[in-house]
Amino acid sequence: MNQFPVVDGQLQVGGMPLTQLAARVGQTPFYAYDRQLLRARVGDLRAALPASVKLHYAMKANPMPALVGFMATLVDGIDVASAGELKVALDAGADPHEISFAGPGKRNTELRQAVAAGVLINLESFREVDELARVSDELGLPARVAVRVNPDFELKGSGMKMGGGPKQFGVDAEQVPQLLAKIGEAGLQFEGFHLFAGSQNLKAEAICQAQQKSWELALRLATDAPAPVRFLNLGGGFGIPYFPGEQGLNLRAVGDKLAQLAERTARALPDAQLVIELGRYLVGEAGIYVARIVDRKVSRGQTYLVLDGGLNHHLSASGNFGQVIRKNYPLVIGNRMDAAEKESASVVGPLCTPLDLLADRMELAVADVGDLVVIFQSGAYGASASPQGFLGHPPPLEVLV
Amino acid sequence: MNQFPVVDGQLQVGGMPLTQLAARVGQTPFYAYDRQLLRARVGDLRAALPASVKLHYAMKANPMPALVGFMATLVDGIDVASAGELKVALDAGADPHEISFAGPGKRNTELRQAVAAGVLINLESFREVDELARVSDELGLPARVAVRVNPDFELKGSGMKMGGGPKQFGVDAEQVPQLLAKIGEAGLQFEGFHLFAGSQNLKAEAICQAQQKSWELALRLATDAPAPVRFLNLGGGFGIPYFPGEQGLNLRAVGDKLAQLAERTARALPDAQLVIELGRYLVGEAGIYVARIVDRKVSRGQTYLVLDGGLNHHLSASGNFGQVIRKNYPLVIGNRMDAAEKESASVVGPLCTPLDLLADRMELAVADVGDLVVIFQSGAYGASASPQGFLGHPPPLEVLV
Repeated sequence: MNQFPVVDGQLQVGGMPLTQLAARVGQTPFYAYDRQLLRARVGDLRAALPASVKLHYAMKANPMPALVGFMATLVDGIDVASAGELKVALDAGADPHEISFAGPGKRNTELRQAVAAGVLINLESFREVDELARVSDELGLPARVAVRVNPDFELKGSGMKMGGGPKQFGVDAEQVPQLLAKIGEAGLQFEGFHLFAGSQNLKAEAICQAQQKSWELALRLATDAPAPVRFLNLGGGFGIPYFPGEQGLNLRAVGDKLAQLAERTARALPDAQLVIELGRYLVGEAGIYVARIVDRKVSRGQTYLVLDGGLNHHLSASGNFGQVIRKNYPLVIGNRMDAAEKESASVVGPLCTPLDLLADRMELAVADVGDLVVIFQSGAYGASASPQGFLGHPPPLEVLV
Repeated sequence: MNQFPVVDGQLQVGGMPLTQLAARVGQTPFYAYDRQLLRARVGDLRAALPASVKLHYAMKANPMPALVGFMATLVDGIDVASAGELKVALDAGADPHEISFAGPGKRNTELRQAVAAGVLINLESFREVDELARVSDELGLPARVAVRVNPDFELKGSGMKMGGGPKQFGVDAEQVPQLLAKIGEAGLQFEGFHLFAGSQNLKAEAICQAQQKSWELALRLATDAPAPVRFLNLGGGFGIPYFPGEQGLNLRAVGDKLAQLAERTARALPDAQLVIELGRYLVGEAGIYVARIVDRKVSRGQTYLVLDGGLNHHLSASGNFGQVIRKNYPLVIGNRMDAAEKESASVVGPLCTPLDLLADRMELAVADVGDLVVIFQSGAYGASASPQGFLGHPPPLEVLV
């Protein structure tokens, strides 16, 4: 992990030494997200992707309002997963026309809010068509809809499979023609398709293949559409490296494939914008979690560094968020980056449960009470994906630097 | 699961049909905890345990303030795991003398609050002795302390092992004599020992063995104590059945063992009270999680019931909280308990992640949008142990009925 520079043995975050940032924040633990890294990541993507491909931020990865506001200035649209996220995206100044709303269990109240806001709703069931027709009538506003398709293939090598086989997400590809007919009958404003095959994939080849297949599927489905396709959201699934041996995604290969598909789209679906929807890939590497060592203990030969935060703030790093096998996240002693003296230590949180393990016998700089532990790759699925109320400790602060 | 009666096909909760309770609560999803079941559980324990054994509630299992207040009227003491929990216990009217505070990473501010409150602090490191000596001086109040011991044995068959081998919890048994000397020198008010070998154990034999060994270890350690032992907390670890084939704990066997130990304690440590500390066992079976079906979909032959809450409210039921193998929690359609027509259905939450799975192809009454899904055994490690902010959905309500 080298996205944050080191000066005089201190990790530099937001242009200052980590200990200064901790003093500025005023408490530990906290999350810090770096604007420069966010901007650089979007820049790298823009450089690799064809200009005609629109870039959306899936804010489920990190819904901190200030960060969403900043991302809204960098990307072309925001994808939301609930009415709660919709509020944050609108408050952040995102253009409703470029907001899309997906989720397998949208409540009727949420559908109504989405229609009132004028955002694009990714349909995931036949029921939603009936409800949206009713709401559109009531509000006198046409519901803008796309169809979220459960494809008939899977994204190989994904951390999470979200398409192929039976799924709660979207509508099976083979049922889509029927759904499109229903959308036409109901008078909803059809605008396109959303396909999402999986997430956290580091293999460019697998992503390109999924994009190719998604594009072909959308093209087939478009023949039954009640109106021209205006948005074709090919999902994302771009992964980031967390563990030793993992390599960052080959962006150029993905960009080349998208350039090919963009060209074909211009011919085959001339009204359509290609959209890529990314969450983790945009924000994951720009964030760190910082906690302070409260105690240092040796138990039967094993050194433990006990922090003031743990799985209550960072469930993923404890290995309890979908991981089959627990692995150590990249973790350092952020104020002892140049330390020559190393030791094997386990890093744990303050909770009374053996699950609260952040690093299991890891080679670290020798550290003591008061030192700052940093977990990298923590910008996505960190604070918001953690049980912050568990055991009654204070929540972490989040800062955008 | 038969702790809640069924009348006219409706689960009865808090003396009323489930649909009426849902109307009274005013929203789904919600958790409901039943006072009668809580009282009955404590009654069963009192009947099985010798009268001299004190019963503590480990509120980490369920920190809902109204529930803690109710439990405080039933049990002899409350165990807290943070300053946040300490506040709730004190607000609930628990006697500070009968509150104990354990946790491997107590902040200095938390130690100070605990001394000011006059509660018993379970020491988990040598550092805490130094800090408590300083705080006691500053506040002019003696710190009341017990030693949390990391035993030299494990609780066999436990869901979570919390003792034996290297651990972040407590102080290794072999280091305790040195710690006791330090406590004496520092002038802290020594009051006893706390031993906790593991949790969620359904085997009475294993629990009895752990209690026996804990007791013997405490007796050995007591010879080095700077003052008579007044509290001997043997932990708990009593499990509840979650999955098919699991049998509830044989309370009589545990009670007999404790009667034996209580008798011996009266002779060997005449000033000591035996304490049992239980969380999940007291509250787990008295609680349910209730969510409403928002959508019903069939994807490639598999029926999905999509709820308005999922792992954001009930992480444990999704199998993502320490479980090695995911199993279905006991789950029913609470307003169709007498339904003759059954089907295999998967029950999922509203989140855009395949982790949000509450029942995988389970035999359930045929259900539709609007019906109420009930997850049993949800009184412990439910709401507070879940990432409530994830994806921006509203939090669940909690009611005590």
